[in-house]
Amino acid sequence: MPKVLIAGGGLVGALNACFFAKRGWDVEVFDIRMDIRKMEHVPGRSINLALSQRGKASLDAVGLKDYIANSGVQMFARLVHDIDGKTYHRQDYGQPGEHIISINRRHLNEIMITEAEKFDKVNFNFKHKIIKADIKNKELHVHDLNTDQIHKIKGDLILACDGAHSAVRRSLTALPHFNYSQKYIEHGYVELNILPKNNDYALEPNVFHLWPRGDFTLIALANRDKTFTVTIFAPFKLFNEQMYDDQSVLNFFQKYFPDAYELLGDDHIKETFNRMKPQTLLDIKCSPHSFGDCILLTGDAAHAMVPFYGQGMNCGFEDCLVLSKLLDEFKDDIPKTLAAYTERRVKDCHTINDLAMYNYNELKDLVNKWGYKIRKKFDLKMNKYFPKFWIPLYSMVSFTQIPYSEVVKKRAWQDNIISKSQKIISIIGAITIGAIIIRKNQLIKNIFNKP
Amino acid sequence: MPKVLIAGGGLVGALNACFFAKRGWDVEVFDIRMDIRKMEHVPGRSINLALSQRGKASLDAVGLKDYIANSGVQMFARLVHDIDGKTYHRQDYGQPGEHIISINRRHLNEIMITEAEKFDKVNFNFKHKIIKADIKNKELHVHDLNTDQIHKIKGDLILACDGAHSAVRRSLTALPHFNYSQKYIEHGYVELNILPKNNDYALEPNVFHLWPRGDFTLIALANRDKTFTVTIFAPFKLFNEQMYDDQSVLNFFQKYFPDAYELLGDDHIKETFNRMKPQTLLDIKCSPHSFGDCILLTGDAAHAMVPFYGQGMNCGFEDCLVLSKLLDEFKDDIPKTLAAYTERRVKDCHTINDLAMYNYNELKDLVNKWGYKIRKKFDLKMNKYFPKFWIPLYSMVSFTQIPYSEVVKKRAWQDNIISKSQKIISIIGAITIGAIIIRKNQLIKNIFNKP
Repeated sequence: MPKVLIAGGGLVGALNACFFAKRGWDVEVFDIRMDIRKMEHVPGRSINLALSQRGKASLDAVGLKDYIANSGVQMFARLVHDIDGKTYHRQDYGQPGEHIISINRRHLNEIMITEAEKFDKVNFNFKHKIIKADIKNKELHVHDLNTDQIHKIKGDLILACDGAHSAVRRSLTALPHFNYSQKYIEHGYVELNILPKNNDYALEPNVFHLWPRGDFTLIALANRDKTFTVTIFAPFKLFNEQMYDDQSVLNFFQKYFPDAYELLGDDHIKETFNRMKPQTLLDIKCSPHSFGDCILLTGDAAHAMVPFYGQGMNCGFEDCLVLSKLLDEFKDDIPKTLAAYTERRVKDCHTINDLAMYNYNELKDLVNKWGYKIRKKFDLKMNKYFPKFWIPLYSMVSFTQIPYSEVVKKRAWQDNIISKSQKIISIIGAITIGAIIIRKNQLIKNIFNKP
Repeated sequence: MPKVLIAGGGLVGALNACFFAKRGWDVEVFDIRMDIRKMEHVPGRSINLALSQRGKASLDAVGLKDYIANSGVQMFARLVHDIDGKTYHRQDYGQPGEHIISINRRHLNEIMITEAEKFDKVNFNFKHKIIKADIKNKELHVHDLNTDQIHKIKGDLILACDGAHSAVRRSLTALPHFNYSQKYIEHGYVELNILPKNNDYALEPNVFHLWPRGDFTLIALANRDKTFTVTIFAPFKLFNEQMYDDQSVLNFFQKYFPDAYELLGDDHIKETFNRMKPQTLLDIKCSPHSFGDCILLTGDAAHAMVPFYGQGMNCGFEDCLVLSKLLDEFKDDIPKTLAAYTERRVKDCHTINDLAMYNYNELKDLVNKWGYKIRKKFDLKMNKYFPKFWIPLYSMVSFTQIPYSEVVKKRAWQDNIISKSQKIISIIGAITIGAIIIRKNQLIKNIFNKP
C-alpha cells in the first residue's frame, strides 16, 4: 500500500488521516504540538467553528458525522442585537430546520485523532516540526523536538495540512509558475467568553448572535457547556484608538454592546484585553495546489480565508472528500489524481475566499440594510416554493455541496433574472399608467364632447 | 558610522553600496555568485536593459551617469516590423533627442562593483549565500560557500537586494501584516543574438526593434559590440505547441519574423532552443517594504515586475535614490527613514508594476491599433506645444522623475480632458449641423414662399 505523509495534525490533517486510514494506506502524521488530548491549554486560533453541509458530508464519509454533529449546538438563525441592548431581529438561515452547528475546535480535533489512531497503519508523530518538503526526493524533512533530531521521511504522497503559515508551502514558493498571495485585512479579533447564568445559557443558544456596528462587530456562538464564545472584530486602528486601556475598553463595550457587556462582566473583559493582543486575519490564495506528482496543499495551507462565511473548516474538510473521490476515480494513481485535483478544486477555493471577503462587508453592516433584508426574504420565499430551482446564496454555500464556483454562477443567474423581471415590471407598469392616462383623457373628452 | 548589510551584489545591491560608500557608512555586501568580473559566463536573467531618466538620475547621484550612459546605445524610437519582413513603422519615444539607452546588465554591474570597492569601508563578500534575516537581533545569516561556514552578521540596517526570489523577504513572510503576492504570467521568453554583418550593425542600432504579432512578440536591442540581443516573448503553451523541435521553431520564426529569421540564422536558433527552456516572467508586490527598524526590501526583492515597460532596473535604482534622500532628510535616523520609505514608496512601486503589466498588452498588440497610434501622436504634439502642461504617459515614466503614482493621476486627468473635449466638440458639431439644417430649411422655405 502507498504511504502518505501528512504535515499537520490539526482539523484537516486529522480528517485526511481518517480518510487514508480507511483506504488502508500507511499514514504518518507530523504535528508540532504535543498530543492535544493531553494538554491543558491548546495554543492557536480558536474562533468557534460553524459546521455546515460540506463539513458534515466529509465527516459522514468517514463515519463521524452524527457523533460530531451531536456534540455541537445547532444554530437556525442570526439574531441581530440593536445598540439599545433590548431590540433583536431574527434572520433565518434557511427553511425551517436548516441549521449550522457551533462546534469546538479542540473537541473536534481530538475526536478525529482518536478515530484515525484506531487503525493499525496510522501513526501520529507529535512534537515534530515540519522543516520543508523535498519535491525531487518525495521527502518531508521534520525536526523531532523530542530527540532534537532531523529526519528525512520518504512517502508516495505528501499532504500539506500545516495551516496558513505552512512550512511545506513555503518550501515551494520559489518553484516556477507557483502563483501565491497573502493579504491581511484591516480587522483583528479578540475572543471572550460568556459564562452560564443560573446554570443555563445566558443568551438564546440556538442562534448566531450578532452585534453589527458598521466597521466593527461582535458575535457570540453557544457551546455545549452553556458558555458562549464571543468574538469582537474591529480594525486594528480602532483597537489602538478606542480600546487602549481598561477604562476605554469597558466604555467601548458598554456603549456599543450594552447587553453583551452586562453578561461578559468588567473583570473578564479587562483580564482578556490585558492578556491578549488583537489577532490578525489573513486571506491566502495560491495556484496550483499540487506539485510534481507527490505534493498537495489542502485546508488553510492552500486557502486560508477570513472567517466571515464560516467556511474555512468546511472547505478544508471538503478538500479531503474531493481528494478521496478523485483517488477512487483514478484508482489511487497519485499523479493523475493530483493533476485533476488542481484542475477542479483551485477555482472553487478561490471563489469561497472571495465570498468570505465579501461577507466581511456583509457582517459588518449589510445585515442592517433594508435592500439586503428584502433580498434575503425574497430568496427564502422563492426557495420555499421552488426548492430546487431557486436556492439563496447563503443556502447554496452552507446547505448544499454545489461546487463554490457553480454557486457563484447560479447566483449571477438569479441576479440576472431579478434585474430582467424588474425591467419587465417597470415596462408593464409604464404601459398600465399610459393606458390609464389615455383612458382618462378619452373620458374627459367624452364628457366635454357630450352634446 | 552605522553599518549596512546588503544582501545581493546585483544591480541594485551594487548601486546601494555606492550610495552608502559615499555616506561613509560601513558597507558589507553578500553575493552568492563569485566575482562576476572574473567569470566567463554570468548566470541569471539577461534581458537587455533600457536605462531611462530615473535610472540616470540615480547613477548621477553617485557620479556614474555619464560613464555608464556612454557605454550604452541610445534608442530614440520603436521600429515596428511588419510580418512581410519589409515594412517598418517608426514611433518616436518622445521629442527629438529624447531617448532611452540599451545597456548590458553585466557590464553595468561590473562598473558599479568596481566603483563601490574604491571606498575603504566597502567590502564585497562573494560566494556568500543569504540564508535569512533575523529581525530581532538585526542579523543577516549567511553561508560562506568558500569555507562552508555559516555566519551571523550584525548591522544597523539590512538591505534586501537579493532579487525576485529574495531569501531575506522569504524569512519575513510569516510576519503579521506582511501582504505579499507573486504572479507568473502566461508568457515566457527565450533570448537570442544577431551578430554584426560586414563588421557593422545588422539592423538600425538606435531604435528599439519590435515585431508585435498579437499574443507573441519579438524585440531586439543593440549592444555596443554591434550585436543585437533578441528576445521572443510567447505563451508557454505556444512554445510547447508550435516551437517543440528544430523544424517547428525555424518554421515559426520564418513565418512570423522573416527579416529577423534571416539575420539570426538557422543554426543559432536551433542551438539556442535546444540549450534554453523558455524562462518565466514574474510580478511581485508586497507591503510594507520596511520591517522593524532595520530591514528594507529594494529592487526586485520588493517589486519584481514584467519587463514590458523597461522600468525594472530604473525603479530599483530610484529606490536607492529615494532611500538616500530620506536618510538626508531624517539625518541618518534609520527607523524614521524606513517608516517614511514605506509610506512614500510602496504606492509608487505598485503603480509601476501595474503599468508594466498594462504594457504587456500594449507591446503584444496595441502598438498596431490605430486608436493607440492617434493618441500617441496627439500626446506628442500636445507635449511639443505645452511641454510642462502635457506630458505623454510613456514620457512621464521614462523621461521624468514624477513619482509613478502621480504619473497615473496625471494621465487620468489627461484622459478626462480628452473625454470632455470630445463631448464639447460633439455638441458644437451638433449645434453647427442643426444651424445649417435650420438655415437650409429657411432657404428652402424662402424659395418656395417667393412670390
